[in-house]
Amino acid sequence: MALKSFVEVGPESHFPLENLPYGVFRHLEVEGEGEGEGGVSHSSSRPCVAIGDYVLDLSVIAAAGLFDGPILKSNYQCFLQPSLNMFLGMGRPAWKEARSTIQKLLSAEEPKLRDDKSLREKSLLPMEKVQMLLPAKIGDYTDFFSSMHHAKNCGTIFRGPENPIPQNWFHLPIAYHGRASSIVISGTDIIRPRGQGPPIGNSPPYFGPSQKLDFELEMAAVVGPGNDLGKPVDVNTAEDHIFGLVLMNDWSARDIQAWEYVPLGPFLGKSFGTTLSPWIVTLDALEPFACDAPKQEPHPLPYLAEKKSKSYDIPLEVHIKPAGQKHSSIVTRSNFNHLYWTLTQQVAHHTINGCNLRPGDLLGTGTISGPDPESLGCLLELTWNGQKPLSLNASVRKFLEDGDEITFTGCCKGNGYNVGFGTCSGKILPAPQ
Amino acid sequence: MALKSFVEVGPESHFPLENLPYGVFRHLEVEGEGEGEGGVSHSSSRPCVAIGDYVLDLSVIAAAGLFDGPILKSNYQCFLQPSLNMFLGMGRPAWKEARSTIQKLLSAEEPKLRDDKSLREKSLLPMEKVQMLLPAKIGDYTDFFSSMHHAKNCGTIFRGPENPIPQNWFHLPIAYHGRASSIVISGTDIIRPRGQGPPIGNSPPYFGPSQKLDFELEMAAVVGPGNDLGKPVDVNTAEDHIFGLVLMNDWSARDIQAWEYVPLGPFLGKSFGTTLSPWIVTLDALEPFACDAPKQEPHPLPYLAEKKSKSYDIPLEVHIKPAGQKHSSIVTRSNFNHLYWTLTQQVAHHTINGCNLRPGDLLGTGTISGPDPESLGCLLELTWNGQKPLSLNASVRKFLEDGDEITFTGCCKGNGYNVGFGTCSGKILPAPQ
Repeated sequence: MALKSFVEVGPESHFPLENLPYGVFRHLEVEGEGEGEGGVSHSSSRPCVAIGDYVLDLSVIAAAGLFDGPILKSNYQCFLQPSLNMFLGMGRPAWKEARSTIQKLLSAEEPKLRDDKSLREKSLLPMEKVQMLLPAKIGDYTDFFSSMHHAKNCGTIFRGPENPIPQNWFHLPIAYHGRASSIVISGTDIIRPRGQGPPIGNSPPYFGPSQKLDFELEMAAVVGPGNDLGKPVDVNTAEDHIFGLVLMNDWSARDIQAWEYVPLGPFLGKSFGTTLSPWIVTLDALEPFACDAPKQEPHPLPYLAEKKSKSYDIPLEVHIKPAGQKHSSIVTRSNFNHLYWTLTQQVAHHTINGCNLRPGDLLGTGTISGPDPESLGCLLELTWNGQKPLSLNASVRKFLEDGDEITFTGCCKGNGYNVGFGTCSGKILPAPQ
Repeated sequence: MALKSFVEVGPESHFPLENLPYGVFRHLEVEGEGEGEGGVSHSSSRPCVAIGDYVLDLSVIAAAGLFDGPILKSNYQCFLQPSLNMFLGMGRPAWKEARSTIQKLLSAEEPKLRDDKSLREKSLLPMEKVQMLLPAKIGDYTDFFSSMHHAKNCGTIFRGPENPIPQNWFHLPIAYHGRASSIVISGTDIIRPRGQGPPIGNSPPYFGPSQKLDFELEMAAVVGPGNDLGKPVDVNTAEDHIFGLVLMNDWSARDIQAWEYVPLGPFLGKSFGTTLSPWIVTLDALEPFACDAPKQEPHPLPYLAEKKSKSYDIPLEVHIKPAGQKHSSIVTRSNFNHLYWTLTQQVAHHTINGCNLRPGDLLGTGTISGPDPESLGCLLELTWNGQKPLSLNASVRKFLEDGDEITFTGCCKGNGYNVGFGTCSGKILPAPQ
């Protein structure tokens, strides 16, 4: 049974009262005549939640004194910030209180906001009138490698079919540090990177625009309170350190990656751009879609062995729209629940050596590939490194071409409602000359 | 011929008027009787330079209107900040003007500060009365792998004597992203990390405190203005993006690293802590010690080929002081000029794919090993992975033991003066139970 808001929420909307994902926006406001025709002022950024086709400006709600629960009554400043970091750092009790307050405020029965026209006009803004920004200042971005199907396919392609999965993979959630500076919000164009590719025979390495540009279907966890340096997080309390999830495209240049990654891992093959969806869907909103994580064999070491091993049923899709084409093609249907290692195991592993996580840090899942041919999360796997081109309506793809627009969506189907992630998209621009 | 300051600078000091390295400090101030005996207040952090045994508080100098050059006269706010990031972002013309102003202000002939007792007492503070902090907010930390001797030794130890250096190494400055959150200032204790090590035979992986804890002798470049996403930095102008250098200890747990690093590179074997020296020595101060970088064969690709290939003659030492011993032993004497890839090539490579650098980002050189047995930059090489223990006065070391204090120093010898880096040190504490 769906909850009912006084804000209109269509049956297909990703953002009903059950979801209430958090983001950060900037109001695009057309200035009055005195300022010159079409003059646009970018107001400052502030936190919001999505409801139907609207954003609810939490800075307005906070300033109006409507966060009246025991924690936020005296800590409403967390919503008068240009990012969500302060709120993220406050932890689950504050998150639960905020969710409950906002859910009540937006419900059909509650008059406080519903019947206050002036407050409604100030706080509820049509999505097309705002610009979404990165929801948090991301101190560090870590990318895991948690899909067994992806690990197996990549290993087979790069190292051959004997032992495609490295021995360590089943014992620990492998990860590497990614580049935080080049993380961009959905809708930002991606410039095709230049770089070195493997030499052929005795010639010097290739240099030029990447010839194997790829997407990677991922999700990422946004870290909450974090931990002090030297103090590991226990796997059974690790959930308290995860605020929610976003969609993430870990754009990858396979030729650059293949040549550079021995022995220190991916670097320029990834660091030219990483795209996030603007809405952080909270673990609280995802709870109805929780499911068991896959059985792990061998049994993990004690610090990774959890009392309850939880995943989420989040159907995911990848769409490609080539330049000049009207319609996009779906190339992948996958699901978050294909991942072998859980979010809580990732947090416990990341901190077991004492490494500190900070509010707003990002933990990417790695490419989410499933067992079926149509559930593979990148072109490297879908086209088997370009050997089996993929048909898209009128064209074919080995890797991405200039002008291609790639869009990820994710949406959990509830009983009469969705808990969706919106979209994570980016278009490929040509490399600089 | 040494320059002369009105502040006393001993002949062995690292910090004469020729150096003037930048840092950030906090004043440890004993409160008056009214506040209770021994009460200490931590005042806010602000930028400074080192002169002899003193720090010069640049916020006081700025507030007194003494930055009177054309750029800083209207931009002196860059010194009223809790970090150096704003100053770093202003670029070389501002850096040169600040250096010239400060050098004049501190010189023996200039009365402005010398004869103003009140201003002197406010701005010149004995080093033992202040606490040094990280000099910049570090957005991203990248670690290169630029010593050929280190690459060759590690390759031989981990992969055998045939082709110890990967084929790509001579074509590009290999690097990986490090962890920014766990970078700490010199003097911070390092807690021995726990983690997984390689399994022996068919047993499960080792789990426990690292048994192969190591230091890595590195230096790191601090990034100045940086570049926009999608706009590579030309190798011949890359020097304008480097403010200066610090000493860096890239602590490494060799057992954790060996087990986790295939295929995505180092992660928990490094992310438990990285120590920086507090003083950023500017490239302007290092210019008298510039020298030719080693000849590169094969010739680098055009984007890495520079008109002038510059290194610096910076002698470096590593000292180990075991717990309870009075004196430390020197275990390494190396030099920055052993590095194969230059700082400017590192910047050009890092950005060739469009990756953006931001002010305050850190570019580690990788372990600085030279060709001689006593010039090796880590215990992995010095003890050949523990096979040849090292003598330290009354004890021996394969890897670091709890209570060991490791100190790096670096000091360029000029004609009658030094341009030194001070020290970068940390002591090993036992792993948590």
